[in-house]
Amino acid sequence: MRLVTYNVGTTPQIGAVVEETLVDLSTLAPDMLTLIQGGPDMLARAQALVAENTSPRLPLASVTLLAPIPRPRKNIMCLGWNYAAHSAESARARGRETELPRYPIVFTKSVTAVNHPDAVIPYDPGVSTQIDWEVELAFVIGRQGKNIQRTEALDYVFGYTILNDISARDIQNRHKQFFLGKSLDGSAPYGPWIVTSDEIDDPHALRLQLRVNGVTRQDANTSDMIFKIPDIIATLSLGTTLEPGDIVATGTPSGVAMGMDPPAYLRPGDVVEAEIEGIGVLRNTIGEPVTADR
Amino acid sequence: MRLVTYNVGTTPQIGAVVEETLVDLSTLAPDMLTLIQGGPDMLARAQALVAENTSPRLPLASVTLLAPIPRPRKNIMCLGWNYAAHSAESARARGRETELPRYPIVFTKSVTAVNHPDAVIPYDPGVSTQIDWEVELAFVIGRQGKNIQRTEALDYVFGYTILNDISARDIQNRHKQFFLGKSLDGSAPYGPWIVTSDEIDDPHALRLQLRVNGVTRQDANTSDMIFKIPDIIATLSLGTTLEPGDIVATGTPSGVAMGMDPPAYLRPGDVVEAEIEGIGVLRNTIGEPVTADR
Repeated sequence: MRLVTYNVGTTPQIGAVVEETLVDLSTLAPDMLTLIQGGPDMLARAQALVAENTSPRLPLASVTLLAPIPRPRKNIMCLGWNYAAHSAESARARGRETELPRYPIVFTKSVTAVNHPDAVIPYDPGVSTQIDWEVELAFVIGRQGKNIQRTEALDYVFGYTILNDISARDIQNRHKQFFLGKSLDGSAPYGPWIVTSDEIDDPHALRLQLRVNGVTRQDANTSDMIFKIPDIIATLSLGTTLEPGDIVATGTPSGVAMGMDPPAYLRPGDVVEAEIEGIGVLRNTIGEPVTADR
Repeated sequence: MRLVTYNVGTTPQIGAVVEETLVDLSTLAPDMLTLIQGGPDMLARAQALVAENTSPRLPLASVTLLAPIPRPRKNIMCLGWNYAAHSAESARARGRETELPRYPIVFTKSVTAVNHPDAVIPYDPGVSTQIDWEVELAFVIGRQGKNIQRTEALDYVFGYTILNDISARDIQNRHKQFFLGKSLDGSAPYGPWIVTSDEIDDPHALRLQLRVNGVTRQDANTSDMIFKIPDIIATLSLGTTLEPGDIVATGTPSGVAMGMDPPAYLRPGDVVEAEIEGIGVLRNTIGEPVTADR
C-alpha cells in the first residue's frame, strides 16, 4: 500500500493511494502514527478496506498531500557519508582527504523541519545562501525495539519513503556538528507517501535520482550504500529504544551542489524532484526570498 | 516557582514545590507542556494558586518526581565544548590540539533518553563501558519564535533546570557526530524541577558542580560559558522555529571522566549528583549491569 496523509479542508486525515485515486482510511485511525502503532492487525484492516472497493474515491490530484507523519514524535535520524562517492565529494569540497566512515555517522533534523510534497522550501538569504539537495531513501520504524539484531532488523521496518535532506552548507560547516545546518524550517520534505515494506522486495536495489529544473544531478542505486539498513537499525538501537513512527534517512549519493565547481546551490524558483524506484517522486520548489527582520 | 511533574500512583501530574511540600496544579493543566504553552496568564494563575495556600499539601518526600517534561516534543538540543577548560580536556583526551569553537556546536539527545530525578541510569557493558557525566544548566523555551534577536532572547526562556548529559564516550568517538553516544536510554536525566526565569536573576552567574559518590569532579560557574544564552537562542532560532517546551542544555565545564588519567568512567552503583546554585540537586544512580541478548 501507498499510505498518505492529506488535507480535507484543513483537517489532516489518512488514506491509501490506489492508482490515481484515494481510499479514505480515516475510519481506521485518526492519523498515520496511530495506524503504524496498530501493527499488523491494523495494516490488515487497511488492506481489507482497500480491497473492498466500496467507498467512493477521491481523485488523487484533487487533494493536498502532507508529509505522511506531519509531526514526528522525535527528530528525524539521518546517516551522513553513507555512499562512497558522496564521501569523496564532501571531503574534496572541504579540502580534506577522503576517509570512508568506519562506523555509521548519525545526526538529526528537527521535527520542525518537516515539509510536505509539492510544498515550498523557504529561502532566506539572511539565514543561508548555500541551500543544497540530498535525495535519500528513508524508512519508517513499525515496531518498538532495542538492541535489534541485524538478522531481524528488516522486520522492524514499516515502510519506505523519499526524503530530500535539504542542507544549509554554510551553517553545517560553521557549526561542525550537522544538526543546525540540517534543521532549517521546511528543510525536511518527505513523502509523497509511505510504501509499506511488503511492496519493496529489496530496499538495497533501488535507483534513486534527483533533478533540479529537469537536469539530473544525482543518479545512483541504494546498492551503493556503505551501511545497509540492517546495520543502521542495529547501530541506532544499540542501547536506544526505537519506536513506531521513527523516521530514518539512509544518506545521499554523490551529485550534490557542494561537490560542483562552482557549487550550483539552489535558488528561488528552482524545482527539485527526488525520485526513487518503486516509491515515486517527491517534488518541491524553492520559495521567493523572504528576509525576516533581525 | 519550582514546577514539577510527579507520579500520583502511576499518573503523572504537575505541581509546585513550596519549601518541602507540593501544591497540586493539576486543576490548571494536565501536564507541564500545557502549562508552558499557556503563557504568562497560566503562570499567573499557578502563582495565585500557590499564594492562596488553601489546598492540603503533600510532603515532597512522599512523591516520586519525574523529569519536568517526561516526553519532550522533539530531541533535547545540547551545546558541545561551551566551556574553554572542557574544550581543552576533550581535545587532550582525543590527542588533538585544543581549538575553541568559533560558533556554537549543537547536537541532540533523543527524547527516549529522558530520565528522572533519583532514577537509575541503565548500565549495559555490551553497549558501552565509557559512561561519563556532564553537569549542565538547561533552559526551557516558553514562547514560539524564529530569528530571535539576542536582546530579546531571554524573554523566550520559561525557566531553568539541571541536565546531566550522560555520554557514552566510546560510542561518541566511534561515530563522530555526537547523537548516538548521547542518546542511550536514560542518558538524559534532568530536573528535579523547572525554576521559572523570574527566580533566576542572572543565569550566567551560577555555580555548578558534579559529585560522584560524594567526590567533587566538576566545579565551575556558568559565567565561564563561551556562548551565553542569548547567543545560543539567536543561533538555534536562525531559520528554525523554537517552540514552548523545547529543552536546551548549555554545555558542561571541565572535570569529566574522559579528561582524567586514567578516565574514571561511571560504574554500577555510583551515585552522581549534579548541583546548580539557585536550582537544586539532581541525583541519579548507575544501575547494575544488564546485558541484553544480542
